[in-house]
Amino acid sequence: MSAYDDLMAFQRQTEALGQVAGRLGWDQETVMPEGSAGQRAEEIGALESVLHARRTDPRIADWLAVAKAPDAVGEAQLRQIRRSHARMSKVPAKLAEEIATVTSLAQGVWADARKREDVAGFLPTLSRVVALKREEAAALAMGGDAYDALVDDYEPGMTGTEIAAMFDAMRPRLVALRERVLGASPPKGIVGNFGQDDQIALSRELATVFGYDWNRGRMDLAVHPFSSGSGHDVRITTRVSETDPFNCFYSTIHEVGHAAYEQGIDAAYALTPIGQGVSMGVHESQSRSYENQLGRSRAFTGWLYGRMIEVFGDFGIADAEGFYRAVNRVHAGYIRTEADEVHYNLHVMLRFDLERALIRGDLQVADLEAAWNDRFRADFGVAVDRPSNGMLQDVHWSCGLFGYFPTYTLGNVYAGCLVKALRAEVAGLDASMAKGDVSAATGWLGDRLQRHGGLHAPRDVVRQACGFEPSEGPLLDYLEAKFGEIYGV
Amino acid sequence: MSAYDDLMAFQRQTEALGQVAGRLGWDQETVMPEGSAGQRAEEIGALESVLHARRTDPRIADWLAVAKAPDAVGEAQLRQIRRSHARMSKVPAKLAEEIATVTSLAQGVWADARKREDVAGFLPTLSRVVALKREEAAALAMGGDAYDALVDDYEPGMTGTEIAAMFDAMRPRLVALRERVLGASPPKGIVGNFGQDDQIALSRELATVFGYDWNRGRMDLAVHPFSSGSGHDVRITTRVSETDPFNCFYSTIHEVGHAAYEQGIDAAYALTPIGQGVSMGVHESQSRSYENQLGRSRAFTGWLYGRMIEVFGDFGIADAEGFYRAVNRVHAGYIRTEADEVHYNLHVMLRFDLERALIRGDLQVADLEAAWNDRFRADFGVAVDRPSNGMLQDVHWSCGLFGYFPTYTLGNVYAGCLVKALRAEVAGLDASMAKGDVSAATGWLGDRLQRHGGLHAPRDVVRQACGFEPSEGPLLDYLEAKFGEIYGV
Repeated sequence: MSAYDDLMAFQRQTEALGQVAGRLGWDQETVMPEGSAGQRAEEIGALESVLHARRTDPRIADWLAVAKAPDAVGEAQLRQIRRSHARMSKVPAKLAEEIATVTSLAQGVWADARKREDVAGFLPTLSRVVALKREEAAALAMGGDAYDALVDDYEPGMTGTEIAAMFDAMRPRLVALRERVLGASPPKGIVGNFGQDDQIALSRELATVFGYDWNRGRMDLAVHPFSSGSGHDVRITTRVSETDPFNCFYSTIHEVGHAAYEQGIDAAYALTPIGQGVSMGVHESQSRSYENQLGRSRAFTGWLYGRMIEVFGDFGIADAEGFYRAVNRVHAGYIRTEADEVHYNLHVMLRFDLERALIRGDLQVADLEAAWNDRFRADFGVAVDRPSNGMLQDVHWSCGLFGYFPTYTLGNVYAGCLVKALRAEVAGLDASMAKGDVSAATGWLGDRLQRHGGLHAPRDVVRQACGFEPSEGPLLDYLEAKFGEIYGV
Repeated sequence: MSAYDDLMAFQRQTEALGQVAGRLGWDQETVMPEGSAGQRAEEIGALESVLHARRTDPRIADWLAVAKAPDAVGEAQLRQIRRSHARMSKVPAKLAEEIATVTSLAQGVWADARKREDVAGFLPTLSRVVALKREEAAALAMGGDAYDALVDDYEPGMTGTEIAAMFDAMRPRLVALRERVLGASPPKGIVGNFGQDDQIALSRELATVFGYDWNRGRMDLAVHPFSSGSGHDVRITTRVSETDPFNCFYSTIHEVGHAAYEQGIDAAYALTPIGQGVSMGVHESQSRSYENQLGRSRAFTGWLYGRMIEVFGDFGIADAEGFYRAVNRVHAGYIRTEADEVHYNLHVMLRFDLERALIRGDLQVADLEAAWNDRFRADFGVAVDRPSNGMLQDVHWSCGLFGYFPTYTLGNVYAGCLVKALRAEVAGLDASMAKGDVSAATGWLGDRLQRHGGLHAPRDVVRQACGFEPSEGPLLDYLEAKFGEIYGV
């Protein structure tokens, strides 16, 4: 065996163990008995320590030093391995361990603080997490920008400066759109009680419509929906609110977007370093385009309206056009995860600017709440009424996930580009979506983007799929056109 | 940290990873998507190879050489570690790997051969498995009895000679009982269609009645029911036949017996070498006493009859006495897993004698089918009609599980002893069981046996619980009394 073959065989086992860790997480969020949490933490800890040992195995450097890739795919594999190995090697084991321990405890402190609306109770813990992440960022950046080093974890090749430029261009147009829309009269919402079993059944149908492969997956309930796994075992979850079926349906379509990406990757890449979605931003471009540009389109909601009438009977909406408007209702709110397409990215930008300042040392944790509240009032026009609706709403920072937030909006930006290109190339898309057939769209995304997995860099794979350089323009054009038309503004 | 502490910390991680492997198995048999089987095999393989490396880690020998146990529990921990370490060290890694590979493939060959009733198609594979297991047995036995070395894997301290003496004493009495019973007129069976949801609901009630802790477990459907996991996550499975609810109910009670043992072990032993049931035989003594001596008793079936009438209405049985007889119906049959209490151990003894002869070289694989069929005619009075009802019925040998079969009957023998002692000590047992309360029995078993986990040797823990030397007598007395009375023979 060559060094390349040895390295790939070693990686394959690591990837397989990584899948096992993912399955444990799935189990924990869906089926695990309540009393098993303590033992499960030890089980996950044991597996993570095996994974850490493998990822920092000194043989990897030896193999990398002499491995010769047999082809372009092999080059991409080595690139991925080099990338994660370099990151692992730069962070001292002791620091990595401390971050793991502190963030694990911090999540409990955060949940507690949120429940008690107690910012002061969370600040010492958050300070500790920020300090540790700054230390990690410094180790990774080796003199470069600290925040960039963290972003690179989730969005390889992307920098805070690029994101800031993009977000700065987006923000005024979104704030203006938001103001126009909220000044108009809101569409009517749906009313009724929507049974759980019927919602689940229709969710399954939606998953099938969007191309989810049930032979390599399953759907369960979870408090916070997620998709999980790569290759031949990619599971999705959804949730049910009996008064708000859109929560269930669009959570499902969103997660199917993530899952379809993983399921759509070339089977030859399964259990290899490039056998997973290439970045969080590209991942989110799939989930958001499935959910919004496709799932909330006039054409598709026309079909969904008919199916919902068949399943649930009358729910207070007279026609498909009213349904389209109900699905795309814009409403002011404090919570990111409940935000509509117009508000969502403003939430993300707020977090991006604040966390970047925290990591770069331009903002102190003690000043975070004031900064959050000032910015929220500026962009959303209202004052934060309580911390759980403000800086205590998201789990991310307690987990140490600095650099993650911007990938949500990056995903929307990429989705805007991809669907623009898709619409330019695929004729008759709306006509087939109006019949509940989205296969032309999902097929295009599968062929142009999903199948490549980690073969190309994130921005490259989007550019190649679109045929143009990705930018925020298409997303903004789409949002202004769509909501301008719905609200007549 | 002392060498003992280091060793225990190392073992704790290994135990935690062992639990993860168990959870993967659970997932595979209950919720895994069909198309995930190939990838799952790689995931399990990767985890098993991690476990194998840990179990053969050279540091274990170093630690064992100097470790000092702080107390009697620590002594038991070291005993368990020494035991498994000695076994792992004796078998060459290459042989262990070959056995894993060959038996993994052999299961497919066996399933296929059984489907096609093709003994000849299975024999070359079986020969290979037997040859490898003989090689392993020789390595383990180091000059001693080869079969004993394999039995010791499942029933530490037990030998083939002891088992043979016990089985030889049991066989004539069981054959005679069987003949008497089958000569009498059979009781009436139940008739009806028993809905799946109702069966599951009543199964859950039965699990609760038998003390299953739902906070640390869950119940799902599986083709072949099993229980899985130790410590704080012990799951059970059952199956449903709409015409035969006893299959569901008694599978559930059986698995609850296994699970209650694991759940009942002293919480301080969780994720340690003694934190699991001490042997297959002792495990089976719990599942079988729950299922048969308790669950199929006149007292308990009296209560179950009432519940079934409430749930299912009339099913053709006029009173509790008729129900007791229906539950305990004895019928001739080819299949071990479907056998009643009278026939079951005859099935096991047949396999024991044959597999012992195979491993000791006294029987050739080529002669196995004839030996099986001769013995079956002798003990069961009928000829095997086809291989799937004969030597192709069980998966065990294709898995390389030689030495496992006798633990089934050993479990029944232990159950006979334990329930004899229990009945002698606990007053009013039948009166409370007749009201659906088995807590006096399960509490006694929990206190006397289950909580100790692997603290004592298998036979010791049974002896201590019973207060007398375990033997086949109580089981045979119980069977002859019970079925003699039911059948008036």
